[in-house]
Amino acid sequence: MTTTPRTLRGFRDYLPETMIAKAAMLRSVATTFERFGFAPLQTPALEYAEILVGKYGDEGDKLLYRFEDLGGRAVALRYDLTVPLARVVAQYADLEQPFRRYQIGPVWRAEKPGPGRYREFMQCDVDICGTNDIVADAEILGAGAAVVLALGVDDFVIRVNNRKLLNGALATAGIDGDDVAKDVLRVVDKLPKIGEAKVRAELADKVGLDGDAIDAVFTLLARPPGGAEILDDVEPLLADHEEGRAGVTELRRLLELVTAMGHGDRVEIDLSIARGLDYYTGTIYETFLRGRESSGSVMSGGRYDGLIGIFRKQPIPAVGISLGIDRLFNTLLELGLVQVGRSTARALVAVFDDDGAPAAAAIAAELRAAGIATELYPAADRLKKQFKYADRKGVEAVVLAGPDEIRDGRVKVKWLATGEESVVDRAALPAVFGG
Amino acid sequence: MTTTPRTLRGFRDYLPETMIAKAAMLRSVATTFERFGFAPLQTPALEYAEILVGKYGDEGDKLLYRFEDLGGRAVALRYDLTVPLARVVAQYADLEQPFRRYQIGPVWRAEKPGPGRYREFMQCDVDICGTNDIVADAEILGAGAAVVLALGVDDFVIRVNNRKLLNGALATAGIDGDDVAKDVLRVVDKLPKIGEAKVRAELADKVGLDGDAIDAVFTLLARPPGGAEILDDVEPLLADHEEGRAGVTELRRLLELVTAMGHGDRVEIDLSIARGLDYYTGTIYETFLRGRESSGSVMSGGRYDGLIGIFRKQPIPAVGISLGIDRLFNTLLELGLVQVGRSTARALVAVFDDDGAPAAAAIAAELRAAGIATELYPAADRLKKQFKYADRKGVEAVVLAGPDEIRDGRVKVKWLATGEESVVDRAALPAVFGG
Repeated sequence: MTTTPRTLRGFRDYLPETMIAKAAMLRSVATTFERFGFAPLQTPALEYAEILVGKYGDEGDKLLYRFEDLGGRAVALRYDLTVPLARVVAQYADLEQPFRRYQIGPVWRAEKPGPGRYREFMQCDVDICGTNDIVADAEILGAGAAVVLALGVDDFVIRVNNRKLLNGALATAGIDGDDVAKDVLRVVDKLPKIGEAKVRAELADKVGLDGDAIDAVFTLLARPPGGAEILDDVEPLLADHEEGRAGVTELRRLLELVTAMGHGDRVEIDLSIARGLDYYTGTIYETFLRGRESSGSVMSGGRYDGLIGIFRKQPIPAVGISLGIDRLFNTLLELGLVQVGRSTARALVAVFDDDGAPAAAAIAAELRAAGIATELYPAADRLKKQFKYADRKGVEAVVLAGPDEIRDGRVKVKWLATGEESVVDRAALPAVFGG
Repeated sequence: MTTTPRTLRGFRDYLPETMIAKAAMLRSVATTFERFGFAPLQTPALEYAEILVGKYGDEGDKLLYRFEDLGGRAVALRYDLTVPLARVVAQYADLEQPFRRYQIGPVWRAEKPGPGRYREFMQCDVDICGTNDIVADAEILGAGAAVVLALGVDDFVIRVNNRKLLNGALATAGIDGDDVAKDVLRVVDKLPKIGEAKVRAELADKVGLDGDAIDAVFTLLARPPGGAEILDDVEPLLADHEEGRAGVTELRRLLELVTAMGHGDRVEIDLSIARGLDYYTGTIYETFLRGRESSGSVMSGGRYDGLIGIFRKQPIPAVGISLGIDRLFNTLLELGLVQVGRSTARALVAVFDDDGAPAAAAIAAELRAAGIATELYPAADRLKKQFKYADRKGVEAVVLAGPDEIRDGRVKVKWLATGEESVVDRAALPAVFGG
């Protein structure tokens, strides 16, 4: 009786040919974050359920993987890396502030699986906690932009908005009450996906807005993205709403700072983006590959000045962004911007026969000591099979020593691309690979 | 009402000062595995429970985190990276064989928490599936040794044993039946931890062996570790047990191959190690830092030729080793072989005031573009606070531009170790850091 081998529904395996490329991307992300002076943090996959529940809105709560552990504790798999960060910042009193960290790790959401949508995916987050200065918002945007650039993508746009401005706009449109406002934002957020007609219908039918309020929402928020001129247009409409005007000021400042960083042409104001999550309080970011806007945002986040205060008496302001590396990776694969490969090695040392195996093992050790990535073929299989394997793995060359070569301290090298073959002194072998 | 911020019992956070060092270790491990031609694999944290249950013995089953997902599926968090690998190899018919992969990721076991013992820990695994040739066992040992060496540790020993030899020795000692043999091995495995007297007592009381059988177990298995001479001693005692003799031959071959690789002086035969896990069938590895044997094995594994066959009709032989990076990391921390640090940046660009923030942002961007790891202080805080922060983070220098410097295209650089200060042209700033 065998157990059928199958991947859990909604989950996926990354086999080596894709994982080689994804691992390289993850290393690039970490290196870039460290170049910005962010240090890594690692938190557990599991948290007390009470830490996570209620932080992502009702819809988010439903997607949590919750269960009881063997000690009867109510626990949950983390839904993102932001709430665990908020927990950490509240929990450890001696963290240096402003506290800046990056974290790369999987998160779990019991979403309905679909094409490219999985219940486990990797997030790469970068956050600054402990200041409400917009310099932090700019630093986060700069780090995010640098990460995407380092991955070889330069045709992208980061769209920014501000929750304070949104609140002002909603109040100006006569929309009162937190719950209604949240509902309106959730619907407006869908604008790029479902279009104006459906947004209007949902605002009328599901949220219960009248025609005037809906028109006001569109005048204020549902505009094509653009530059600072959008702020000039909207500011007078917010005339007497202090919070809304503060949002305008913050966005202007953010534009000024990111322009100084050299990202002015990659940043747009988009008053229609709202992010589904309840906890944002200021700046909001979304990031789209140009021409692939329908794939959704590959890097999103914002300012959440209230979240950490859920875990301690004094709130701590914070801002961050999260790169959805799996979504970005899949898009880059489709665009041909990622190379898949089957081997991490340049050379394969073949095993001539059982007697020749120790020499093959020694030759592989010599190549590796010289820094040449090398596979030792792990069996005295037929040589034909070993060469076929080398071909499929795409290594550059096969290195082989039969009894004569072993006796003479020499090796054969066969280059797979050209079929060229030569015999060299064993001591000179690393040099053949430039080592 | 605030929620108390606390880490789930049995779990831990890696704050930046330790995680900076651990992340560097993880990168070193991945780089070394790739130098050996292993490619990365990623499997989900969650598996169908039936994939995991029954693979780790009764004790292992009890430690699984099991629950029902929202779709009513019985699922479990992975307990190691080996069984998920076995699933993958059985599931994907088109994987190149021999299939060699590494995987780095957390695993979960509901162990009783204790000092240094957590319910989530990171494993770094390397395996070769598809051959029973001992060249593969040697290649795995070589990769493991190279990983530990690359982490700056050279005073360690890899102890090897062989399950076939153990089976032969048990049969020779008159111990029949799989269940009794497993119980004996489980007890003998504790020898370094609990000592001879307690092992004898457990073999008598818990397993029910008589005095002769216990003596035979000690003659055959419970010897101090050493070289090939142990095999010469034991081989005649196994005279007519074919499997046992095959185990001796395999161990001799393994020693020959790893000696050719240059690891002869790091490998010892230890007939007392058995590994707790049920699935090993041949070579067994354990790894100890010399002088820290009581901390337990930091890298363990072995050959498991039967495991993949649980998931498909035709078995596929396999061998692998797993580095317990958290245990090794903690030991290295205690030994002072790991440096902790609070920053990944060399320079901190301070913000003189609100007006000076765009210039500071631009200066940070210039340093980063030159490859200098740089923090932009994320707020126009008092300069005293910014310098104190820089001190605590341990950056090399603070870079500052006030209104005069900004006007003149210059910056101040203050080196924190010496207190030395100078003013340089902004364009020459990266060169000051060697960029």
